[in-house]
Amino acid sequence: MSARRLDGAALAAEIRAELAPRIARFTAAQQRPPGLAVVLAGTHPGSEIYVRNKIKTASDAGCHAELIRLEATASLRDAVMTVRRLNADDRIDAILVQSPLPNGMGAQAERHVFDALDPSKDVDGFHPDNVGRLVQKRPRLVACTPLGCIELLQRERIPIAGAHAVVLGRSDIVGKPMALMLLHRDATVTICHSKTPDLVDIAASADILIAAIGRGGFVRREFIKPGATVIDVGINTLTSETDLERFFPGNARKREQFARKGSVLMGDVHPEVAEVAGALTPVPGGVGPMTIAMVLRNTLTAAEQRAGTRAETRSAGL
Amino acid sequence: MSARRLDGAALAAEIRAELAPRIARFTAAQQRPPGLAVVLAGTHPGSEIYVRNKIKTASDAGCHAELIRLEATASLRDAVMTVRRLNADDRIDAILVQSPLPNGMGAQAERHVFDALDPSKDVDGFHPDNVGRLVQKRPRLVACTPLGCIELLQRERIPIAGAHAVVLGRSDIVGKPMALMLLHRDATVTICHSKTPDLVDIAASADILIAAIGRGGFVRREFIKPGATVIDVGINTLTSETDLERFFPGNARKREQFARKGSVLMGDVHPEVAEVAGALTPVPGGVGPMTIAMVLRNTLTAAEQRAGTRAETRSAGL
Repeated sequence: MSARRLDGAALAAEIRAELAPRIARFTAAQQRPPGLAVVLAGTHPGSEIYVRNKIKTASDAGCHAELIRLEATASLRDAVMTVRRLNADDRIDAILVQSPLPNGMGAQAERHVFDALDPSKDVDGFHPDNVGRLVQKRPRLVACTPLGCIELLQRERIPIAGAHAVVLGRSDIVGKPMALMLLHRDATVTICHSKTPDLVDIAASADILIAAIGRGGFVRREFIKPGATVIDVGINTLTSETDLERFFPGNARKREQFARKGSVLMGDVHPEVAEVAGALTPVPGGVGPMTIAMVLRNTLTAAEQRAGTRAETRSAGL
Repeated sequence: MSARRLDGAALAAEIRAELAPRIARFTAAQQRPPGLAVVLAGTHPGSEIYVRNKIKTASDAGCHAELIRLEATASLRDAVMTVRRLNADDRIDAILVQSPLPNGMGAQAERHVFDALDPSKDVDGFHPDNVGRLVQKRPRLVACTPLGCIELLQRERIPIAGAHAVVLGRSDIVGKPMALMLLHRDATVTICHSKTPDLVDIAASADILIAAIGRGGFVRREFIKPGATVIDVGINTLTSETDLERFFPGNARKREQFARKGSVLMGDVHPEVAEVAGALTPVPGGVGPMTIAMVLRNTLTAAEQRAGTRAETRSAGL
């Protein structure tokens, strides 16, 4: 028995095709395309790839997409000033500041920079005002990775209402917004983390299991209720041949990739889980492409809301 | 066997005594007491009692506490204008708008009014910015009822870290902030609600069970793992003699109360739960007094933060 493969790449292509006419309508009505600005500070190799994908996806879809590079030596003040300039730039509807920021900006750099974002342009939904609105079930812009997971579940017709959803991980970026989004769709939700004593038993009670802990192959066969849906949010890089053999024995494709690049990607979910789960997202090709598609959709949503919000503000009269 | 009674009234008195010197210090340093304004629109009988308790507690503790009454016929605009005036009033550190607002103000009245609050004066923690900051584990002002539950658990030395906490109810005011606060203290948290199919089984796996559903006596014996801690957030009014006999057979004190007032209060937890639980909050005298004590503490916190925030803003330099 082998789990159904939840093909995020194919669904992301479907979403991009659906967004195309909305982008064209916006561009025609506003006499300009939706605008995305991505701020990249320093030269983190992973970040370069993510940023390139986001820019290319937005640009290919007909958005204005610009990359603002800051030196690795840039200060926190430089980053905040860049955000403020983009807040004031009317051609920009959506601002994405790529994490991590350089160490030199300090431990709380992301927080300061996200707080400086105009919430209506906060394409990642990290500003406290957007987080609060998500909790209050009146979302404006919400985090792209959990949003992509919801979209994937819905398009694959996996029932959320009435399901027991277990979220492994409690980060601000994935775990907590994921739990709220599942709750608002009538799942019963359990959030587990590094301090959960009986993690395996709780995971094994899940109809939907979301793995977002950042440890390659951590979720094993015994974590899974037979037939459960497993969403693997982890993106981990294997660089040792021992790990390659441990996780992917006899996998010719992975072995070839490893020989070529010196590394392979794997999720938080062990490959053996495919023998027990009912449905499973691959890594790569599962949650990753959905996240990028949600960056595009949020860019368009931000653009539409900004265009609409201006009219609403005029007429609210309070 | 009978559950240990978690005496919220006694703990609330302890908290008030602890806050007294902090209030005195603030008053001496700022040449004015912390200021709480409570806005009450219309004449809801339950609200009159709550508001009177909050005003009296703050006033007895040495705060400036004022009640602003709006007619039942007041408009939403009147309520928002009242909040804006209080936002601008420098003697007022904390603003509490009592729910429910009159029906005439419209279905979304609370939301509009809470959104109009200066977040730094939002003593109930209902503004989206305060909700977002709670999610991001950098709380400024957080909802008084779940905060009171946490305080009660901590003072009663009931371990939260590593516990499985089950929250029944997913309201913005109790369920969701409660779940987040337990999560941030390293509980594994499950949120159940009206659409949860196997509510009883999940509740019965809880080390800490929070009942916040608003249905008198809903939580029965079979919901409880023997020895679990049960926090009863519900405040329900029994007005029929049948219900009185059903929930409190042979209870002379309740019967006498009923004869005198025509009603008795009860929580969401059935009295029989005391035979199974390890510890239990009474209703009244459990969570209620803790909530009021947290209104006082939040008033002082808001006053201290506002006094401190002004200095910080000057020196941040961004």
